[in-house]
Amino acid sequence: MHMTAPPRRGFTKAEFERRTARAQAIMQRHGLDALLVTAPPNVRYFTGFDTQFWESPTRPWFVVVPLSGAPIAVIPEIGGPEMATTWLTDIRTWPAPRPEDDGVSLLAQTLAALPRRHGKIGAELGREMSLRMPVIEFLALRERAPGLEFANGSPCLWEIRMVKTEAEIAHLRYICQVASRAYAAVPEFVRAGDTERELCKRFRFEIGKLGADFTPFLPAISGPGGVSQIVCGPHDRALREGDILFIDTGSTYDGYYCDFDRNYAVGRVSDEAKRAHDTVWRATEAGIAAAHPGATPEEVWRAMGKILEEAGSLGNNVGRMGHGLGMQLTEPPSNMPGDRTRLVPGMILTIEPGMEYSPGKMIVHEENLVITEAGPQLLTERAPRELPVIQ
Amino acid sequence: MHMTAPPRRGFTKAEFERRTARAQAIMQRHGLDALLVTAPPNVRYFTGFDTQFWESPTRPWFVVVPLSGAPIAVIPEIGGPEMATTWLTDIRTWPAPRPEDDGVSLLAQTLAALPRRHGKIGAELGREMSLRMPVIEFLALRERAPGLEFANGSPCLWEIRMVKTEAEIAHLRYICQVASRAYAAVPEFVRAGDTERELCKRFRFEIGKLGADFTPFLPAISGPGGVSQIVCGPHDRALREGDILFIDTGSTYDGYYCDFDRNYAVGRVSDEAKRAHDTVWRATEAGIAAAHPGATPEEVWRAMGKILEEAGSLGNNVGRMGHGLGMQLTEPPSNMPGDRTRLVPGMILTIEPGMEYSPGKMIVHEENLVITEAGPQLLTERAPRELPVIQ
Repeated sequence: MHMTAPPRRGFTKAEFERRTARAQAIMQRHGLDALLVTAPPNVRYFTGFDTQFWESPTRPWFVVVPLSGAPIAVIPEIGGPEMATTWLTDIRTWPAPRPEDDGVSLLAQTLAALPRRHGKIGAELGREMSLRMPVIEFLALRERAPGLEFANGSPCLWEIRMVKTEAEIAHLRYICQVASRAYAAVPEFVRAGDTERELCKRFRFEIGKLGADFTPFLPAISGPGGVSQIVCGPHDRALREGDILFIDTGSTYDGYYCDFDRNYAVGRVSDEAKRAHDTVWRATEAGIAAAHPGATPEEVWRAMGKILEEAGSLGNNVGRMGHGLGMQLTEPPSNMPGDRTRLVPGMILTIEPGMEYSPGKMIVHEENLVITEAGPQLLTERAPRELPVIQ
Repeated sequence: MHMTAPPRRGFTKAEFERRTARAQAIMQRHGLDALLVTAPPNVRYFTGFDTQFWESPTRPWFVVVPLSGAPIAVIPEIGGPEMATTWLTDIRTWPAPRPEDDGVSLLAQTLAALPRRHGKIGAELGREMSLRMPVIEFLALRERAPGLEFANGSPCLWEIRMVKTEAEIAHLRYICQVASRAYAAVPEFVRAGDTERELCKRFRFEIGKLGADFTPFLPAISGPGGVSQIVCGPHDRALREGDILFIDTGSTYDGYYCDFDRNYAVGRVSDEAKRAHDTVWRATEAGIAAAHPGATPEEVWRAMGKILEEAGSLGNNVGRMGHGLGMQLTEPPSNMPGDRTRLVPGMILTIEPGMEYSPGKMIVHEENLVITEAGPQLLTERAPRELPVIQ
């Protein structure tokens, strides 16, 4: 696989200006005077500010994106020096933690002083987002901003973030390449008899050496001829002849995730498992082919579902067959019935068909792609049609 | 340092029963008929269920802790097989994602069927917690549970979680030992000229080898004679003669965090920096000594503050001097004015004094301890009084 150099970390001021201008046009269409964001990916999207300190839930952080002009940061003092290194110039801080008023007054003043056109502020109240502040403090903020209505800003935020910029796509391409190389090396450093937990530790080292910053998501699950679930693990189970080893990873580079899995045969697996593997591989092909501009995630789902059903799938417990991807492990849209989002160039999709071919034996594949004018373009090195073997 | 073997992963059914019984007594005092929890540490606390899949914000997960009896899980189908391996027996699932009703009806039914005594459900609405579900879906739930009031359950949850069990303390002790060993090895694998980013990568490998599962928090920051902030980084800055290198880590073992830092001199540092280092070291001693049962975090703060002020501290931008620790990197209480939580055996504190001794030059120390009947007991290997030197 052709391996490109890691893209430059961070994004230019021009990029943030373009993101903000595009966001403001979308906000205008949604009838919002501002977006209030609190969640790390949203703060990063508009400011470039990042910190592992998000792990501490003590202090809320706020960024206000007005209908015109640059975003305003309303943040704990501890973050002031670093926020000053971003493209933002309007940075307001308070001495946090301050339990009796942790930024709420300062934020209310900031919002109250914004020009009003629609009288509505969009907050992260809707699907696939959590508000990163205590709900009682959000409700108090609502009381303290008379004449301002807080609306569900999530659909607007997802419309903004769902279409990636060239620089974002370069980040995603890179981490997908890194993970593809780590997966290719698995048969070199995993042996029958290893426990899931041990092999995960080695995988984590390997993908770190190859260029990943973090690996927040790395379930490895094994079972005779397939697995019963794909999100919990690793456990201390040792690999045995006839197992399928399933590994999935959401690893990041500079804040952008890959999210795809790979399957391995431990020694010889049953013909039934091989047939199911081949079916899911073909379903993946169909899903990739269906992900062209103008199609919908529902159509992508149908293309995969048809092949799985014809092969006698008992279904699976994942609930959908792929999703958006970017600064979160999973983002809208969802490849499932009812999602009629129109796919456009710059969107990222995971193609993730799965089938239970026998009770408790599930096989799930996954690839990541970007929608381009010319059609779907894989970001991952396509999984081999034959199961790679672990000795 | 005496290194104990890693404690057994997970907790016994008897432990969960004890946790639940104690929680129910506290709930009774708070006038709550149930706790509704959505956040990973709270779900883990009551069930033992864990998954890295929390990284995906698409699906909410719910656990209901009633006033008597075992907790009830109301979760996406994808988590059913693993939840069935916990001590819970009442597990209700729905085929998620289902945007039009992602568990809300099932949860509303579950809550409505609980016996009523106080008419109140405690939810994660307050400080140092986020509700891990869309706020609009929480508000919809409120509408759909007539006769049930949702109260701020965070104070009750913190009262429950703030005092750790013996088994939790064993987990915390172990990860603190692992991190202590990793810090001790830093002068062996870091050299002047290394960038912060490179040395973090090595530290991450090292602490993983020594026994940490994950390292979600690892800022490394360097600066001539001190640092201007302690939560953002690493950056690409290379270590230079006269720098102080500050490393902090929140690494985990089986879901429990350490959180402490260490400082290193790169070659020779100024006498002024050495004096400040010594002051902060002595403030740490005072903080540790003050953390006895019956004292308050405010008193612990005062003990440290006195020494820093006498030495002419310009303050610092951290806002407090230590906090609780457990399944989160930071938990209540806070070592700061106004926090009059009574310290009792089983509580964990970080002792974290810091001073800016010259503009932009801050030195911050940190240790972790457990409050015991006999007084404070360090979990970390105490930082050396003399700055270790990196060549």
